[in-house]
Amino acid sequence: MLERVDSPADVKRLSRIEIDTLAREIRELLVQTCANNGGHLAPNLGVVELTLALHRVLRLPEDRVVWDVSHQSYVHKILTGRRDRFATIRKGGGLSGFSMRAESPYDSFGAGHASTSVSAALGMARARDLQGGFETIVAVLGDGALTGGLAYEALNNAGELKSNFIVVLNDNQMSIAPNVGSIASYLSMLRSNPLSGFTRETGKSVLRRIPFGATAKRAIEAAEMAAMHFGADKTAVIFEELGFRYLGPFDGHNYDALVDALQTAKALDRPVLLHAITTKGKGYAPAEVDSRTFHGVGAFEARDGTVAKKSGAPPSYSEVFGNALVALAQRDPRVIGITAAMPDGTQLAKLAARFPERYFDVGIAEAHAVCFAAGAATRGLRPVCAIYSTFLQRAYDQIVHDVCVQNLPVIFALDRAGLVGDDGPTHMGLYDIAYLRALPNMTLMAPRGADEMLPMLQYALTCDGPVAIRYPRGSVPARDMGSVAPIVRGRADVLRRHCGVAVLAYGAATDIALGAYEAIAATGTSPLPTIVNARFAKPLDEALLLELADDHAYLITLEEHALAGGFGSAVLEFASDRGLGLRVERIGVPDLLVQHDSTDKQRARFGLSVDAVAARILALSSDARTPVGRP
Amino acid sequence: MLERVDSPADVKRLSRIEIDTLAREIRELLVQTCANNGGHLAPNLGVVELTLALHRVLRLPEDRVVWDVSHQSYVHKILTGRRDRFATIRKGGGLSGFSMRAESPYDSFGAGHASTSVSAALGMARARDLQGGFETIVAVLGDGALTGGLAYEALNNAGELKSNFIVVLNDNQMSIAPNVGSIASYLSMLRSNPLSGFTRETGKSVLRRIPFGATAKRAIEAAEMAAMHFGADKTAVIFEELGFRYLGPFDGHNYDALVDALQTAKALDRPVLLHAITTKGKGYAPAEVDSRTFHGVGAFEARDGTVAKKSGAPPSYSEVFGNALVALAQRDPRVIGITAAMPDGTQLAKLAARFPERYFDVGIAEAHAVCFAAGAATRGLRPVCAIYSTFLQRAYDQIVHDVCVQNLPVIFALDRAGLVGDDGPTHMGLYDIAYLRALPNMTLMAPRGADEMLPMLQYALTCDGPVAIRYPRGSVPARDMGSVAPIVRGRADVLRRHCGVAVLAYGAATDIALGAYEAIAATGTSPLPTIVNARFAKPLDEALLLELADDHAYLITLEEHALAGGFGSAVLEFASDRGLGLRVERIGVPDLLVQHDSTDKQRARFGLSVDAVAARILALSSDARTPVGRP
Repeated sequence: MLERVDSPADVKRLSRIEIDTLAREIRELLVQTCANNGGHLAPNLGVVELTLALHRVLRLPEDRVVWDVSHQSYVHKILTGRRDRFATIRKGGGLSGFSMRAESPYDSFGAGHASTSVSAALGMARARDLQGGFETIVAVLGDGALTGGLAYEALNNAGELKSNFIVVLNDNQMSIAPNVGSIASYLSMLRSNPLSGFTRETGKSVLRRIPFGATAKRAIEAAEMAAMHFGADKTAVIFEELGFRYLGPFDGHNYDALVDALQTAKALDRPVLLHAITTKGKGYAPAEVDSRTFHGVGAFEARDGTVAKKSGAPPSYSEVFGNALVALAQRDPRVIGITAAMPDGTQLAKLAARFPERYFDVGIAEAHAVCFAAGAATRGLRPVCAIYSTFLQRAYDQIVHDVCVQNLPVIFALDRAGLVGDDGPTHMGLYDIAYLRALPNMTLMAPRGADEMLPMLQYALTCDGPVAIRYPRGSVPARDMGSVAPIVRGRADVLRRHCGVAVLAYGAATDIALGAYEAIAATGTSPLPTIVNARFAKPLDEALLLELADDHAYLITLEEHALAGGFGSAVLEFASDRGLGLRVERIGVPDLLVQHDSTDKQRARFGLSVDAVAARILALSSDARTPVGRP
Repeated sequence: MLERVDSPADVKRLSRIEIDTLAREIRELLVQTCANNGGHLAPNLGVVELTLALHRVLRLPEDRVVWDVSHQSYVHKILTGRRDRFATIRKGGGLSGFSMRAESPYDSFGAGHASTSVSAALGMARARDLQGGFETIVAVLGDGALTGGLAYEALNNAGELKSNFIVVLNDNQMSIAPNVGSIASYLSMLRSNPLSGFTRETGKSVLRRIPFGATAKRAIEAAEMAAMHFGADKTAVIFEELGFRYLGPFDGHNYDALVDALQTAKALDRPVLLHAITTKGKGYAPAEVDSRTFHGVGAFEARDGTVAKKSGAPPSYSEVFGNALVALAQRDPRVIGITAAMPDGTQLAKLAARFPERYFDVGIAEAHAVCFAAGAATRGLRPVCAIYSTFLQRAYDQIVHDVCVQNLPVIFALDRAGLVGDDGPTHMGLYDIAYLRALPNMTLMAPRGADEMLPMLQYALTCDGPVAIRYPRGSVPARDMGSVAPIVRGRADVLRRHCGVAVLAYGAATDIALGAYEAIAATGTSPLPTIVNARFAKPLDEALLLELADDHAYLITLEEHALAGGFGSAVLEFASDRGLGLRVERIGVPDLLVQHDSTDKQRARFGLSVDAVAARILALSSDARTPVGRP
């Protein structure tokens, strides 16, 4: 059946039985491809029928679907002329794992972060109204995305603007981990609507949650009877109060019900919220049983869902961080950990297991995570916000306004800082040094590997202001870098001391610098460079820079970050302000969007490899004249 | 009476009649002081009784009040030992116009931006619970702050955590301008609760908005009767569903009612939302009649509220922008304007008056504003987001993730970019170049004054990607800078061409550079500098920099922005990458928080004055050796 579907028009032609066959074939393709490439399997298995129904009811691409986060857009890709290339998903040069406007006219809006779809769809709807268009616009968002304030801002605005558009709430009771917050409890109440096929409680208990006061009991019972009888959506008060017509809940795996519901929603000339209940991992037993593992998964055995265990490989930075935080929490009762819906990704789950009362998952709500931390810090706690570099962008104003302006001791653990590989441009952690370095009171650090994680966190606990510690995706270096010198504020660690050319590496790039050093040393002939583990991007080790200027002509800075405003620029600013007579060469990521690929290839492309750095050192060494020295 | 109150303990001792006298005296002091100093008069007049009631019921400073935005904390300041210094408010070295932890132990949390108080209070409450404390924690937020997603994220989290704390909703039906969004309509429904003193509709129409379906009519009528009879808070479903106990609405100017309500709230061991209805400007007729003008006002006549009109002074940058946008919108139907609750501050009100259907006030919801703009841009519109530099921090992830990654043509008009004067550190627009410059696809510009505003906006409309145009608070320069050369991408405008020392000024700093030039020229003896209006911070005018390196030894960059990662750093990066033989000296704001003062004093402090720049030019000119030239 799959071979017959190359565009949405083909889906419309299929019989009801053919749709079932197609759904089965799509699931097989999803499982097989994700088993090979890794990817967001469980979310896509959950939206097969929903996507087919959307393709049935809508006229694509004139009508528009905005997929929230868009990791669940694989089925949509398969149905819109990208089936042949589906095996390339998340591979360099292949399909993106997310919606991407440049990839297809059927991708009306790109994403990668949560909670944006309602805003974007509303913007499209208002543009349509102004321009006199008639297309249908649909945002599809998960219940997890509803914990993000942006979704609420958009719902609040949409209800007022009264534009005609549809929000499909794809409710699987999970974001990546199980959902948190009152809105999650609220949705579970809606799910129990006795009029849908999803009754879990009686209608009575549902209506009683509406706060009529106990004494109004009799009237409520009368209302309950009436409502039960006349089929009113009596529980969806929040969405109705926000100005939406609420339809649902519907079985999100019942194609016919979804087609009917979408047609009803399309006919209504106002904002509609269509509530569909889906099962993450639907149709593939291992993913249904463990949707958390199969949310975003690496390669696995399609036959039985066995996920290959890493054997012998070093642990990830996240694991090292998670263990270090537990060790710190054991010693220091002030330590609490905060995650924005990423307990597994950040490995804060380790803290949750050991000290559940000191662990806070606030939902996909990074701004709140940081402001909550600021509040807790005023009472003497030492909150550690473990948030990916790319997601911390969502809390930028709280970092400025609540943490830095008040100089509060909040610790930011910036995971996935640097090149992130197959997730592509929406997830790159390439801007954090630039956006944090300009802020007064901020201290910026990065560990060279596993051995500096705990000492740096320990140091951060001694600071009376904010500290951000960045570390990349992936495994810590296997290289033995020798013993760890004590962490001293604004002091770098000189690992190899020579003259002529010095390499100042920030964080994980230290491993590359040492690799280059060893490669040069192995030749036995070339002059050897000085190798410095910078440790701090703010404050810089100014004394060391002055000292290096005495007997070095070149300073190479190495960072996995955008070159504009990053660590290298900080070094450059200091060198310029003091008139140091050495040349600074900055290696990092230039001013472009980095598309999905393996991190190794991404690093190599920007000269962040042992070979490339060794080559630069050799080229500069041969050019190194007598240093000009201090002014 | 006022002289007898130096701490919260004094308020507790006052009789009921003395409280009324005190309230009257506080209002007189507020009016008199704001008449002299300017300030947020109307919001403070609105919370006199509320503040007195909080001081009566709470044990301060052990208990904590978190004021949202905190421009309404003047009364709190007067009552907490700062009465004597109240005349210094918003003046250099005087009291801050906002809560500030460093100013008083009674200021438990600082603010300046909206919607943070619930998050911060929840963080405090959880810290208290962990540490075994018993204090009462209260967040006071306006209804406007409820349009911000951060407030929702916090409410959602609070309902789940079930911590004991109180949110006082200070509902005056306004933020700065009238409120927008469904939540505003919802609140107006709550206000009409027939059981409070605020009935505006009948109880019937209220309950009918709960979506029972028309056919359940009879049961609803029965429920209405019961509810009316038993005094249930039947309409506050949203807050109750979010896990809060809703109390209200109360008359926010009825001290006794507020004291009772706060005592009830304090006794409940769960999150409580206390809804108080207040009148902005209460007790001072001019401010009651025109609370929009008196929200934040300059000096005025206390007698009758006459606000001094500027006569003969040049218009503000905001006015020039507002007029330019209307002119563009007239010519180009793609142009729409978006504000986050600041129609007056940004002067987008001009567009609203002329093209109401192309004007969008989305509430205090900057992230949504930007994502909404991105959605509209995909359908061919050219949205202009007019947002202060400091508030655009709240939309940083949308700028990265929705606009830059997709390269959508959204125009950002960054008002209040630079030093902002008496609002102090929470409002400084000193980081935008740093946080925007690192982003691929972004174009950064700044007009030298009124004459470049329209041409730059026109140029931005020709771009197929994002453009940010920054301009400061205050009046445009009065200086005639000559005719405006056409705007060409990445091309600066050379205003005076000499050799030795060049000044590269970004935006409004051009006026300072030209002033310095004229001061030097007036002496008739010293060598004259080259003066460049940079126009673009990204992309830089690289050809010009190469050319200047031929016959200049020094380049001074001038910007009203943090030195770390700003415009000067961009110039430095280019000069270093190309090995240009000129020295770059960067003038801007160093790495510190800038406290409130006049903008003139703030500028002078950082060398951003005609005299200081002239002195630097002269010092460098005498030092200017033969330039090294290109490498």
